Amino acid sequence: MKIRPYAKRDAKDLVALIRALARYEKLKPPSDAAAKRLLADIGRRIHVLLAEVDGKPVGYAIYLFTYSSFLARPTLYLEDVFVLPEHRGAGIGKSFFKELDRAAKREKCGRMEWVVLDWNEPAHRFYLKLGAKPLDNWVTYRMVLDA
Amino acid sequence: MKIRPYAKRDAKDLVALIRALARYEKLKPPSDAAAKRLLADIGRRIHVLLAEVDGKPVGYAIYLFTYSSFLARPTLYLEDVFVLPEHRGAGIGKSFFKELDRAAKREKCGRMEWVVLDWNEPAHRFYLKLGAKPLDNWVTYRMVLDA
Repeated sequence: MKIRPYAKRDAKDLVALIRALARYEKLKPPSDAAAKRLLADIGRRIHVLLAEVDGKPVGYAIYLFTYSSFLARPTLYLEDVFVLPEHRGAGIGKSFFKELDRAAKREKCGRMEWVVLDWNEPAHRFYLKLGAKPLDNWVTYRMVLDA
Repeated sequence: MKIRPYAKRDAKDLVALIRALARYEKLKPPSDAAAKRLLADIGRRIHVLLAEVDGKPVGYAIYLFTYSSFLARPTLYLEDVFVLPEHRGAGIGKSFFKELDRAAKREKCGRMEWVVLDWNEPAHRFYLKLGAKPLDNWVTYRMVLDA
């Protein structure tokens, strides 16, 4: 198993993994047009890591950098991290976080942050074991914009 | 009253406003070193708007762009929005959101997002009136990194 940056030849595999995460989260998966836009945004708006087992991508992470105005440091924001169910329990998630930690330190980040669906208990257990803490006293607001 | 982009001559006023927000939120205000780093990150990692009344800055907004992998569109992420208490109720917050909406549309964002402390009821009322929705089923996790 290895974690490596996305390369153009991974396009189909990455889109399949993103759709698998959407199904897992019971959310609407990206359309073909959205998948095309996302691939064009890699390196520009988002960074992508892949986990490869026997030469085949079995997981991915999408991250970018936000900012804390009070710390005055960037934050590594993890938009997605996903490992195919049949490859869980083998340390791939932990390897992703090790690599993300490296990326965060390269940018002198003060924090790493991400969001998790409340019902996704295995994910909560995993994140707590990593030493992350839920921000219980903050509420996220979203405004949907017209296209 | 007008909303305008930050300029270098606003450095002192902006730092004072950020510290006023930290006091209001009962959080640790940025140190002098942090304030210096933040000023250097404007335009590079963050965008800053100021609200000016009679030539004096009385509020600020810091934003940046995150991303939705399922929409494959950027999200305007509002890191801070603050108006001095004595200038509230005059529509300055609404004017900030109008300007942020313009910035989001320029970048073809699908959403605008931000976080709010749970006890800050006037803020919740204001955001709900704007048409934003709390994301009740998502939990934010944070991992603090060693500097």
